[in-house]
Amino acid sequence: MNAVVFSIGTELVRGLRRDTHAADIARAVTALGIDVVRHETLDDDAVAVAAAFRRAAGEADAVIATGGLGPTRDDCTRHGLARAMDAALAEHPDAVAHLEAWAEGRGRSVGASNRVQTLLPEGTEPLPNPLGTAVGIAARLGRAQVFCLPGVPGEMRAILTGSVLPRLRQAAPGRVTRVRTVRTFGLAESEVGERLADLMAAGRPTRLGTACHAGVIDVHVHASGPPEEVDRLLDSGAAAVRERLGGAVFGEGEQTMEATVADLLREAGATVALAESCTGGLVAAKLVAVSGMSEHLLEAVVAYGNTSKVQTLGVPESLMAEHGAVSEPVARAMAEGARDRAGADLALAVTGIAGPGGGTPEKPVGTVWFALADEGGTEAVCECLPGDRALVRERAALYALNLLRLRLSGME
Amino acid sequence: MNAVVFSIGTELVRGLRRDTHAADIARAVTALGIDVVRHETLDDDAVAVAAAFRRAAGEADAVIATGGLGPTRDDCTRHGLARAMDAALAEHPDAVAHLEAWAEGRGRSVGASNRVQTLLPEGTEPLPNPLGTAVGIAARLGRAQVFCLPGVPGEMRAILTGSVLPRLRQAAPGRVTRVRTVRTFGLAESEVGERLADLMAAGRPTRLGTACHAGVIDVHVHASGPPEEVDRLLDSGAAAVRERLGGAVFGEGEQTMEATVADLLREAGATVALAESCTGGLVAAKLVAVSGMSEHLLEAVVAYGNTSKVQTLGVPESLMAEHGAVSEPVARAMAEGARDRAGADLALAVTGIAGPGGGTPEKPVGTVWFALADEGGTEAVCECLPGDRALVRERAALYALNLLRLRLSGME
Repeated sequence: MNAVVFSIGTELVRGLRRDTHAADIARAVTALGIDVVRHETLDDDAVAVAAAFRRAAGEADAVIATGGLGPTRDDCTRHGLARAMDAALAEHPDAVAHLEAWAEGRGRSVGASNRVQTLLPEGTEPLPNPLGTAVGIAARLGRAQVFCLPGVPGEMRAILTGSVLPRLRQAAPGRVTRVRTVRTFGLAESEVGERLADLMAAGRPTRLGTACHAGVIDVHVHASGPPEEVDRLLDSGAAAVRERLGGAVFGEGEQTMEATVADLLREAGATVALAESCTGGLVAAKLVAVSGMSEHLLEAVVAYGNTSKVQTLGVPESLMAEHGAVSEPVARAMAEGARDRAGADLALAVTGIAGPGGGTPEKPVGTVWFALADEGGTEAVCECLPGDRALVRERAALYALNLLRLRLSGME
Repeated sequence: MNAVVFSIGTELVRGLRRDTHAADIARAVTALGIDVVRHETLDDDAVAVAAAFRRAAGEADAVIATGGLGPTRDDCTRHGLARAMDAALAEHPDAVAHLEAWAEGRGRSVGASNRVQTLLPEGTEPLPNPLGTAVGIAARLGRAQVFCLPGVPGEMRAILTGSVLPRLRQAAPGRVTRVRTVRTFGLAESEVGERLADLMAAGRPTRLGTACHAGVIDVHVHASGPPEEVDRLLDSGAAAVRERLGGAVFGEGEQTMEATVADLLREAGATVALAESCTGGLVAAKLVAVSGMSEHLLEAVVAYGNTSKVQTLGVPESLMAEHGAVSEPVARAMAEGARDRAGADLALAVTGIAGPGGGTPEKPVGTVWFALADEGGTEAVCECLPGDRALVRERAALYALNLLRLRLSGME
């Protein structure tokens, strides 16, 4: 069974925005054992969209399209699908009911332009959208099941997960292709490659690949076959990878570093406070992205200005004057100050030079001090992180979370 | 003149990695006045790649492919092109010379696996690669000029800029296609569509499209023609859009909301403090992403736990008990507390229910209170934001920054 993914939007085809939906959809569909053979990024042009639907419907068992279901005139996915099906567009009563309930729930009247979102090609079916006005569309065209989803990220994901994947799962074949991802932090890619060299050789039942971003190196283990055999291959393949990479492994699949830290905080019943300078709240924002952290993350102080470091975190002014804000003593004092004021078990501080300005020969851009305080004392470490401002900050936030992970799991 | 862009790689088609090359190539090609009609993301499969080349060569004047020119077994772009051309692969003397010079320059011998990179379909031409072993390939197929580039980012860009764009520029018509983007926040997409309806009508010299994410609606104004005329059309088109959308416009091009707020803080010489609950540091992290904010963002307190709201921000416990942490009085007290402790001109507080748990009939998931305090007093506003946890938090952070923008620009 195979599938084609469409992303529809002039801004995408002209490269004004990078498409992220096609990859997300492809990953979810691949996980069902369906071979994604192609993505297409298409212009908001009903004739081109219709041609693409027709062609894909002759080749694939499933077509999943995203984008072009909005209320403005450039949105033409529904028109393209209708043209491909030789069907007229007509108001669908369920779509009308959805739109009216949506407006009523918000005490608004239905805008005239939103009315177009109730038009579906005849013979197709609306897919409920819990988060917006645009219902999805399910159709049959040639041999293919066709699904059209809005481009708004939350809405796309909600309909994909709620309606599309369950239907595709029913249709999926006995033979599957699956990928297991082992996630690591703290090793160089070349070191990962060397430790895994024999596992990456050709002719093995699993295929391995690596991908890295901001210090995280993902090892993808691929296998194909009957589901139980694939799962067995992936279990042993992932176990071998984990064994080679040891404490650098922080999770599998889509597990994030912050989710791992959150799990460890819950298991330990521990509380944490943060003192952030160059990361500016990124560490806190990542932890808060995990639901239910309010009992564990007691407080974060974004002490971006020096006054805040002194007044709120109690860093002695003399220390700032003598060593500078990016220094071991200041990082230690920030962590201890944050821990004291919040009454937390652990406190973590980050202070560094994210650039592009502010670097010196002694402290180049990318220099970041981290400190971790607990009842046993305070430890500090300095890293020089590569990349531009955004990447230095992202790496620093991940590095900080990784320090928490290592401490909470007793590895450091 | 039109073009199709291919990204070739199993990791891309399975969604393990997001493709960024297609957008970058499309933007560069669009700027030459060439219409990009489609991108395709293809598997490392010579038969599929050949079919895609054949089809595109029948429809487009240019095909630019990236990926699959490496030395490993999965790389098959050269084989796919040869198959599409019904040509044999043969060592090209220039490609051999390049590889040998490359190896010699690094004091290495030529690896056996790299030899495949000297094979080109007969009748094609190598494109110099200043940064790696893989030469690009230029071919003619059907009516199309075909270019194959490596997937390694620096090498792709070097050959694109050095060889492909100059050739396309020669072939491109005297006319160009350019895009101007007007960025807005706070209007519904349907309202934007209604206000711009006449400007979006067919047959006008500029073409308008909208794209939205997390409450930001971008209006793209496209125009084609001789360069000076295009710039004039874009000036007047963007001005018309700005006039219709008024205070909702926060920037043009790639200007972010936080960059606009940072500019306004600099112009006003104003200082700000933040008190964040559900956004958990996102507002601060966005502002800190703009370089040079340390004199303006005095402090942010991520008061995610209730104790922090009481102890650090001075929110009376009675207020929390009576109204709950997500309420107007608590939002106001958070803003005032943050302003007092930092001694800032302005303070902004955010407290809400990001979900998935924690909602009630009176305060459903997505309920967020914002408060903005300055010397004139404190104003508060409540919004019910749609989306999942991540989207509610992102929207809330943008909404908060937009409140700062409106206040600093004297609009509210």
